[in-house]
This record gives sequence, structure tokens and C-alpha cells, in this order.
Amino acid sequence: MKIGVLTGGGDAPGLNAVIRAIVKSSKVKYNCEVLGIEEGFDGLLSPVKVRAMTPWTIRGILPTGGTVLGTTSTINPMEMTKKIDGKEQQVDLSGELKKNVEELGLSGLIVIGGDGTLKIADNLYKLGVPTIGIPKTIDNDIPATDVTFGFQTAVNTATEALDKLHTTAESHHRVIVVEVMGRYVGWIALEAGIAGGADVILIPEIPFQIDQVCKKIVARYEQGSRFSIVVVAEGAKPLGGEMSVIKRSETGYALRLGGIGNKVGEEIGGCTKMDVRVTVLGHIQRGGSPTPYDRILATRFGVAAMDLFAQGRFGEMVCLKGDEICSVPLSEATRGLKFVPADGERVRAAEALGISFGR
Amino acid sequence: MKIGVLTGGGDAPGLNAVIRAIVKSSKVKYNCEVLGIEEGFDGLLSPVKVRAMTPWTIRGILPTGGTVLGTTSTINPMEMTKKIDGKEQQVDLSGELKKNVEELGLSGLIVIGGDGTLKIADNLYKLGVPTIGIPKTIDNDIPATDVTFGFQTAVNTATEALDKLHTTAESHHRVIVVEVMGRYVGWIALEAGIAGGADVILIPEIPFQIDQVCKKIVARYEQGSRFSIVVVAEGAKPLGGEMSVIKRSETGYALRLGGIGNKVGEEIGGCTKMDVRVTVLGHIQRGGSPTPYDRILATRFGVAAMDLFAQGRFGEMVCLKGDEICSVPLSEATRGLKFVPADGERVRAAEALGISFGR
Amino acid sequence: MKIGVLTGGGDAPGLNAVIRAIVKSSKVKYNCEVLGIEEGFDGLLSPVKVRAMTPWTIRGILPTGGTVLGTTSTINPMEMTKKIDGKEQQVDLSGELKKNVEELGLSGLIVIGGDGTLKIADNLYKLGVPTIGIPKTIDNDIPATDVTFGFQTAVNTATEALDKLHTTAESHHRVIVVEVMGRYVGWIALEAGIAGGADVILIPEIPFQIDQVCKKIVARYEQGSRFSIVVVAEGAKPLGGEMSVIKRSETGYALRLGGIGNKVGEEIGGCTKMDVRVTVLGHIQRGGSPTPYDRILATRFGVAAMDLFAQGRFGEMVCLKGDEICSVPLSEATRGLKFVPADGERVRAAEALGISFGR
Amino acid sequence: MKIGVLTGGGDAPGLNAVIRAIVKSSKVKYNCEVLGIEEGFDGLLSPVKVRAMTPWTIRGILPTGGTVLGTTSTINPMEMTKKIDGKEQQVDLSGELKKNVEELGLSGLIVIGGDGTLKIADNLYKLGVPTIGIPKTIDNDIPATDVTFGFQTAVNTATEALDKLHTTAESHHRVIVVEVMGRYVGWIALEAGIAGGADVILIPEIPFQIDQVCKKIVARYEQGSRFSIVVVAEGAKPLGGEMSVIKRSETGYALRLGGIGNKVGEEIGGCTKMDVRVTVLGHIQRGGSPTPYDRILATRFGVAAMDLFAQGRFGEMVCLKGDEICSVPLSEATRGLKFVPADGERVRAAEALGISFGR
Repeated sequence: MKIGVLTGGGDAPGLNAVIRAIVKSSKVKYNCEVLGIEEGFDGLLSPVKVRAMTPWTIRGILPTGGTVLGTTSTINPMEMTKKIDGKEQQVDLSGELKKNVEELGLSGLIVIGGDGTLKIADNLYKLGVPTIGIPKTIDNDIPATDVTFGFQTAVNTATEALDKLHTTAESHHRVIVVEVMGRYVGWIALEAGIAGGADVILIPEIPFQIDQVCKKIVARYEQGSRFSIVVVAEGAKPLGGEMSVIKRSETGYALRLGGIGNKVGEEIGGCTKMDVRVTVLGHIQRGGSPTPYDRILATRFGVAAMDLFAQGRFGEMVCLKGDEICSVPLSEATRGLKFVPADGERVRAAEALGISFGR
Repeated sequence: MKIGVLTGGGDAPGLNAVIRAIVKSSKVKYNCEVLGIEEGFDGLLSPVKVRAMTPWTIRGILPTGGTVLGTTSTINPMEMTKKIDGKEQQVDLSGELKKNVEELGLSGLIVIGGDGTLKIADNLYKLGVPTIGIPKTIDNDIPATDVTFGFQTAVNTATEALDKLHTTAESHHRVIVVEVMGRYVGWIALEAGIAGGADVILIPEIPFQIDQVCKKIVARYEQGSRFSIVVVAEGAKPLGGEMSVIKRSETGYALRLGGIGNKVGEEIGGCTKMDVRVTVLGHIQRGGSPTPYDRILATRFGVAAMDLFAQGRFGEMVCLKGDEICSVPLSEATRGLKFVPADGERVRAAEALGISFGR
Repeated sequence: MKIGVLTGGGDAPGLNAVIRAIVKSSKVKYNCEVLGIEEGFDGLLSPVKVRAMTPWTIRGILPTGGTVLGTTSTINPMEMTKKIDGKEQQVDLSGELKKNVEELGLSGLIVIGGDGTLKIADNLYKLGVPTIGIPKTIDNDIPATDVTFGFQTAVNTATEALDKLHTTAESHHRVIVVEVMGRYVGWIALEAGIAGGADVILIPEIPFQIDQVCKKIVARYEQGSRFSIVVVAEGAKPLGGEMSVIKRSETGYALRLGGIGNKVGEEIGGCTKMDVRVTVLGHIQRGGSPTPYDRILATRFGVAAMDLFAQGRFGEMVCLKGDEICSVPLSEATRGLKFVPADGERVRAAEALGISFGR
Repeated sequence: MKIGVLTGGGDAPGLNAVIRAIVKSSKVKYNCEVLGIEEGFDGLLSPVKVRAMTPWTIRGILPTGGTVLGTTSTINPMEMTKKIDGKEQQVDLSGELKKNVEELGLSGLIVIGGDGTLKIADNLYKLGVPTIGIPKTIDNDIPATDVTFGFQTAVNTATEALDKLHTTAESHHRVIVVEVMGRYVGWIALEAGIAGGADVILIPEIPFQIDQVCKKIVARYEQGSRFSIVVVAEGAKPLGGEMSVIKRSETGYALRLGGIGNKVGEEIGGCTKMDVRVTVLGHIQRGGSPTPYDRILATRFGVAAMDLFAQGRFGEMVCLKGDEICSVPLSEATRGLKFVPADGERVRAAEALGISFGR
């Protein structure tokens, strides 16, 4: 038995722990081979980019960020393009992928990825490629699993930044605005905000009113707390307003501009007349050594995926429910987004502490 | 309404986050007063040691370890002693505690503690003192709640130590034995061991055979991995053997000697003839800034306890089930220990990676 | 003897360690009193803001960032303004400061601050106020001392960010641009860049040519390293170009926009057609727990300043030369800036590793 | 030109940064080859263990602890032994080393190591092998250089442990004893002790009196600080007493028992009747990612050693004086130990804070 493994989409801390768990348990428990496919599904297109993976070749990767297999950010994975006669053309490459899986002598694939990557995986499965999925997103927004690895590491990184900003904000009587990841959901902002002692948290799920934000900051000032920490998710938006725009040039490169953070900072400065500083954490949140929690979850996912594979339960994805590792059909896996409930227990607990969501 | 808050037993990262959440939400949501009781139940004995707590007095404590209220390690809380006529005598002090609660004008108590502390809390509740409990143990061994705050921070600290020991073990072809906390349960050893890439994990729930341990280490050596990392819980014991003894002198001081770690190290050295080093992490595992997860859980517990108090649901303890904050009767709270299932999914996943439990 | 202590200018990790060392050594070694002056020289204007400081009141501040005394960022300290008849007017307040020092019964001042703050200190000294200075700047740009506390902590924070960005850059074949502090000097960028394995470092002292930067990135890509890390100091500027502008509105608030980082990122994206991401670290670099090195240096500075005070050596500032604590006249202390030598050993060592400075 | 590189003795954080700097600068600046020799001088004995090193093979090692080349702890390097006819015999292997250097076609060696390793290097140089040395010791005890890499990382690790122990000591009114590395010199204990806010620091250079230690702890207790942190270097010894013994069995394995820490803890417990806990940090101090300072120093050393090599300045060792990289003869390099001056500025500063050295 020979298994192909690939990682797709944005990287998340814990990917290497998953790969390691698959390689180790495939050897120890099932004595079968693993072939690493490089750079997501790109590595399965001709000419294929693969390499044999053994417990020896993956030594030392458990505590590392990133993915040793490389990845590509497939923005819209169902509409893949290929250069034909020097021109980018939209083509259906599933046939080629399937053919290469067979030619490599693979019994099937374990695909680790988010939304987009898992949709391709499901597609391939339906075309007859035996496939198992493992969910990955630092945003923690996949409804089919309670938690995804990488999320806690991202929250850790954002919280550490908030801890550091606290002392300087307090020493200087400043407002510090921190833009964190979360284009569609506010989990990172919410958890880092609570853990980092934020005074205001702005998330996509709760459209904010800037005057409510300023009111909170001014009230704090008047009570003697002459500084405030404001956490803003990338996708936070004013009531009735637009999403922050991700600029993407035609020349093919994407430059992420910290849009909403700077905008919120500017408005707070204008309205409170206080000294405001803005920090855009950016991709720091994707990196770093995974927390023990993420390493363990990733390891459990890897072992469980290998078990599903050995049992021939293709078309399924591993997931976590409570503290149980279980599985769901791949097709279910990618349905919708798991939003922060605007009146859930976490948000209400935050409000009980006096944190404002700008509503 | 005036609420008394106290922390009892060993300290755990997150205690200050709980205290902060109670003080803040009592003010923001219920506009009532909080009185901090110092050094556990000791502070409720005459002369009482208390101080008013406001959002102002608890500024900055969220990311700190320890407890600003102080605590005492009540080994057997049901048999309290007091100096009477210069002699230690066993007395029932519940009456005194109750009287002082009344004299301080308290509407009741929120008690944060482990096993022993919560038993006193339940006792007081039954004597008519309105009491709410919040579970605390870095060992994560309370059955009534899925997780306790402080546990993940302890796992983090132990994992960081393992990460550091890995490079030195590998560079030198050494066996490194790390003794971690866990006198009765092996959760810290298990999770840190998986997260830190241990080769052997010894826990109280799975009695070990030293020859199985050495066999694993020698097998690794022969396959080219000429180092091994062995994680040992304080309470690990050989098959058929005795618990490691906690030395306690008659003069009233306790000196924790890293018993089992040194013993296991000595035996491995003798049997494999390899270079062995032993590290006893000790109380480092209790300290440090709580992880974001622990800060959030502690905060949610604090807010929920305050809600229970406001609703008059005395005699209950907050807990976590899945991702839900809920509550159970205090009497249930302290029943038994939550052991690592010797054949549970985590242990089996660890074994699938090749980790030996010495069985 | 009663000594006034104040901190001025931007905060730096280690300020609290200095304060603690002054308070502790003044008590232990000289048995004299310390009065903390709040918010820099503002606290010495009428009505004064002061508080008594004892070893008891400063417990626990050693590992904390910020300053317990508060501070103000005096942009141009020699031109202080005061509201007179509801209007901001430029006035000479040295007389008022001096008078308040006397009325508080202070034997003199220990002033901890940067450039601007130390200039006021020197001025006060010349007016007859017994004053000792302690240098502070995270930029490490004061010529009179080899090292200032806070600098290493800032380098640490920036290096940690680079470590995290490495894995994600590598997994995705991206160019990551990180803007770090350093408006006039490039020490943080240089040291964090070397320590964090940057491929390009842009500093104010070495004007860069963007095509040299892109050439380096493309060369790496062609040799198989399909990602690059670019560290940019705030004050980096293109050859023949302008300083990045710090926007400052007329309404009195300052909003720091990560100017040069975004600009460099945009140009690299345009010219290499690679995927570029920008991170602006901002004030994170000012915060956080000081590194042991900074705590020790700050402690030594504090003790030495107290010694100078006791010896009546007013008008001097403590400093570090090699590993020796020594002192210089305050007037010398604030002369010029310590720039990165464009052909010094560090820059040449970096170039020997293949790091490009864009020249 | 082909250069052999090896690392010997105990590992220290920064070794990989040195190796990387040599490999990168040899390529970028001198375009010559590097051969990595595995496991110290062992790799130069027949059969040799070597591998080619290129910028590609050393990717990613900058932030890692340990040494990718492996090392051996040569306790007494001048008396090497070899198995001849199944028996360990003392032999002079310099001839074999020299022969292998020639057969590998090496122009010479760069040797990174401590005391013992550098003595062999000097010996080889005198036998005609072109050799450059780089000093390495986490103890910072080599007189010929102001600082060695690895030291600050070790101080960091010990300080982090002290930070964590502080909160738990304070919450519980405990005495916590922490044994840190330093068999002959007390630099780690001294610096970590000052940085971590220790109350007592015991180092080899200042023999302690246990009653002075207890007096300090009791005095603190009586003034309201009912906890104390005691840092003990491995090699600390009572006035008139013996060094703590390192147990070494005849069967060839060494088991480090935390001798002096436990002993001091026991005596403090006995004499103060307070609750005492002991932590033995052990090899954690050797591991972990090097601090930026250590990465930069290691990088500068590596580049400078390569420069010396290219200039044919064999028999020299790189070193740091003030902030200058310079060099000294290898023979000078290993003369004596750099002790903590018992009445130096650092110790006196510590005493001015109230820290006791037990004298």
C-alpha cells in the first residue's frame, strides 16, 4: 500500500505534525509507504513533484511551522488554469490528477487543507480517487469540526502582541489598534481580545458603530484608564458599511494592505483626539511553532486519517467533536462557515467584563 | 450585595484571570461589591484577612501567574487544626468560618480551588453559607469538568522543556529523562510527551516494565536514532511496584525530591550503558503567564460563577462540557479522579507513532 | 536625603528594572527615600503628581514592560507649552520645575530618558537642580553609551516575528516585507535581520536601490529559494529619495502609517511579479518583558546612578563602555546619533552571508 | 580550497549559526568548499564520518539549538582511547587525525569547541594541521573572549524558570531553590539571579554559609515577604566545604544528580521550618533556540574564522573584546578560567539590591 499526502491552501502551524503522524503511524501501525506530493495539487500535475517520506526524512518537523511539502494558495480551486500555447486557459485537470495518482501507484490520497482544497479532494473522490480529508484553517471557521489545528497558535501570537502593547499603551496613555486575521469570521479577534485584555473587539459578525467605540474609549479615559486596546479583525465592518477591500493588482501579485485597522485608527484619533498607534500583525499569525494543543490535535488527526484510509473509508474527513475524534463526509465538510454567534456565551462573557463590540 | 472570593490549594495559572472576571463582571453586570479573602480559608478565620477588590485594584493581573489573593496548600482540608494553648489541636472551624462570613456582611462566597478546597466549600454550603465553586487543578483530574484552566499552561511549560532537550539529546546521543507533575494522573506527561516528541511516556495509569523501556531505547539506537527522550510523571510506577514516596519530615517542612525520574534514569543507564541525564521540572509547571486558552477558560468560569451567584444557584460548581459552560452540584464535583484511559484514543494514537508506555 | 525619579520619552523595556534598582539600592545601601514623579516632567509641573516609592510598592515590576511611573513623549522638550488663559503658549517652565523640586524637599533628580528628556535634565542641572541621567532608547542610538537597555528586547521581538514569517514565506514561495522601528538609525533592522535570517536589510544609513533589492530576490528564486524576507527600518530611504513621511494631523493626534514597508512591498511586487506580504510590527517592539540582558543592564544603571547621586556627581549620566559601567557629562550624552557604520564589521559580515543592503 | 568544520564538547545554542556562517561566507566571499566532520574529532578517526555542506544543506538551521554535525563530550581530550584487540587502550591518535585531514584533501580545519576541544585543536596545529578555533561554552568562562555564544540563551532559560517560580513562591509563601549550571564558575547563576529577581545567589566563587542564607530568608519573612527564591550554581560550596560530587558509575554511564540544590533546600527547610521546593534545571539550559544576541555573535565568529582561514592565520582563535571581533593564539585561548570577581561591580550591584551571596 502506498499513500500520497499533500497540503493545500494557506499554511497553518501543525501541518508538519499531521504529516509526521501520517508517516510514522503508516509505518508503525500499517507498515505501508508514504509519498509526499509537493506544493498541493500542483505536485500532481505533470510533471509530478513527489518524494518518498519515511520516519527518517521527517525527523525534527514536529515543532516547526509551515509545511515541509510546500503549498499553494488556490484562490478558486474549482477553476484551475494551465498554460496552453503560452496562454492561461481554464481547463478541467481532474483527469490528469487522477491519471498521475494511478501512474504513481498510489492507493489513494490524504489531503490536508481548507475549504477550497477539500472541495477538490471531494471532487477527486467522486471521480474515483480514494481520498481522505483533514481540515486545516487558522480561522477555525469549518463547521464540521469543533476545532482546527493552527487556530490556537494564531490566537497565541496575537495575544502575545496584545500583552506587549499593553504596557506601552498604559505608559503613554495611548489608543493602540491591532489588526488581526479573520476576513470572514472573528474567532481570532474574539479569543485574542479576551485573552489579551482588549477594551474593544470588532469582528465581521457584529457590525460596529464607530461612535460606540469612541464612547467606550472616552469613558475609560474619564474613569482614569487613559489608554485603550482595540482589536480589529481584517473583515470587521461598520454598520451599513462595506467589507475592507483586498487590493489585487492585475499584474498578478497581491499586496495585503492593512485596510480596516488603519481606518479604524484614523477615525478614533479624529473623534477622541487621543494619540493612536496601529499595528498590523499580518502573516506572523500563520507562522511559528505550533502550541502543544495544536501539535496534539494535528497528531490525532493524522493518525485518525491513516486509520480511515486503512479501513477504506474514503470520501470522509476527520474532525473533532467535544474531545472525540470522528469523521464526516467530505461533501459535508466544506458547507458554509462557522461564525461567532453574536449573542453566544463568549461574546456575552466579554461584554460582562466591559468589552465593547461597538454595538 | 457583597461577595467574598477566595483561592485555595496549589496555585494554577489562570487564578488571577478568574478573580479579574468575577470583579469586573460583578461591577459591570451586577453592580455589586467583591471582598477578596486572603490565603484561602485561612483568611476567614479570626482575625480575618480581607480587602476590597475593584476593577482598579486588579488592573494588570490577567496575564500573571499565581494568585493575588494568596493561597495555602490544605493537604487534608476536612481536618483543620488550630493552636490552642500552644498546642496544635484538631477542631471544627466551620462555625467560625460561617460566623465571619456573616460578620463581614457577605451574601456568600465564590471559592476557587481543587479537590480539598471544594470539599470545604460544599461543607460550608451545607451549613448554610451560600457558596459557588470554581474547579482548579493543573493536573486536569476533576471528572466533573472536561478541562480545568492551568492545565494547558503546565503542558506548554513541559513541552517547551522537551523542545529544548531534544537538540541537546540529539547532538550528544543521550537519553534524557524528564520528570513532570502528575502524582495520581498522567495527563501532563501524556500531552507534553506527545507534543514534545517523546519516545517513552510513563504514567501512573499504565504501570511500566523497565526492560520494555530499555528495549525501545536500544531499538531506536540500532535504527540510527541514538538518543531518546523519556517523560515520567511523578506518580509513575513499575508494574507490581510502589508509588514514589514524597518525603515529609516531622519538623513541618516538605522537601519534594524528584524520586521516580532519578530512579528511572539510573535504571536506564545501568541497562543500556548509554549516557543519561535527568531533569526535574518541579514547580516551574505551576507558574508562568497562563496561555490564552487558560485565560479565556478562567474568564468564562469567573463570569459564569458570578451569574450563578446572582441567580442564587448556591451549592453548584461551574464546569466545561464540550465547549459549553455548565454547572454541577458541588458534592458531585469532588468525586473521584479523571484518569487517563489506558486504552483511550490518545494513548493508542501515541502508540501508533511508536511511543512506548513501557508495557 | 530624598530623591525624585522620573521617566520621560517613549517607553523601553527595562524602565521598571531601573526604577526598582534605584528604589532598592537607595534603601539597602543608602537608607534614603525615593519619590516617584509621574508622567515625566509633567509630574513636576504644578500641581505635582508624585508618590512615595518603597521596596514594597515596586514588588513584581522587574520583569514587566512599560514604566510604572508613566511617561510622555516630549517631541521637542525645549519648547514646552502650557495652557494660559485657555490658550497654548510657549513658556519657560524651568523655574516652575526647579521650585517644585525644592518644595517637594528633593535633594535632586534621577532622570531616565532619551535624547530630549536628557536635554531638559542637563538644562535643569545647569539651573542648579542636582541631576543624574540614565540613557534610554530602544534604538541604541546614543553615542555616549555602547548599549542601552530595551534595545535587545526590541531585537528579540523583531527576530521572533522573522522566525515566524520564515516558515510561511517558505511554504508559499512568498516575499515577506517586515517594517521595524528605526527612524534615523538601523540597529534594530540590522541585528534582527542578521538574527532572523533576512535576505535583504534596508536601513537609513545605506540608501537602497530597489532594482538591487529585486535582483537579489530574483537570484534567490532562480537558485531554488523561492521566498525572501526583507527587513525595512522605518527610516530606510531609496538612493536620492526622501524620508518616509510621518503623518501628523492638525487636530493633535498622530497616526503612524507604515509608510516605507508598504511602499517597498509594492515595488517588489511590481518588479518581481511575486506574491508579497507586508507586516508592520509597530509598537510591539516597545513592549514586552525585558530580556535578562536588558534587566541586568537596567539594574546596573540604576544602582550606578544611585551611587553617583550619593557621591554628589551631579550633571553626569551613567553609561556602558565595553563591560564597564562608567559616566559622562550630561551635556556630552546627547550629542549626535550613533549610526550603523555602512562598512563596519557587522554590515560586512552580513554581506559575507549574502545579505543585500540594496546597494 | 576545502575546509573541514567540526564541533566538539557539550552543545551550546548558536553552534548551528556558526556552521551556517562558515558555509555561507565560504561560498559567497571565498567560493570554497566546506566538509562537515561529524561528532567532533571522532569523525576524523578512521573510518571518517564526513559530509559536504552547502548553503542548501544548511537551510533553516539558524534558529535551532544543538549542532547538526553532532558532537561528543570529550572529558579529557588529551588522553584519547581506542579499542584495540577488544580492549580500551590509551593511544596517541594525532597522527591518524592528521593523516585523515590530508586524505580528505582539506586545506585545514575550523574547530568549534570549549577548553578541551580547543586544546586538541592547538595540538593539531602544532603538528602541522592548519587550524582555526572558535570558542564555545555556555558557562562564559573562557578568559580570552569577553562573551561566548550560548551563554545568554542559557541565562534566558534560567531566568524564564525564575519568572515562573516567582508567582508560585509568592502565592504559597515558599522557599524555592533552583539549581542552575556552573560547575566551576557562577556566571549563569549570577546573571539569571539578578535578572530573575532572586533573593539569594550561591556561586562557586563565593563560598556560602548556610546560616547567612537562612538569616536572609527569615529577615524577608519578617518584613512581610514570606517567600524567597534561591539560585544555586551546581558548583556552589559551603565555606570550608567540598564540591558537590558528580556521580559516575564504573559501567560507563554518567547520571547527573542535582546534588547541591537538594542539599541546600534540605538545610533551609530544616533551619527555617518553611516549605521548600527544589527545581533542577539541568540540560534544558543547553537547549533551545539561540537568542538573537547569540545568533549574531555566533554568525560574526563564523565569518571572522573564515576570514582568518582565508588569510592563513592558523593557530588563532576568534574572540570578542568589547564590541570588536579579534583573535588570539589558540594556546592562549585555553589558559585558565574566567571567574566571577567576588567583589566586582555586578556582585556589588546585586548586594546593593539586597541579594545575599551567603557571606
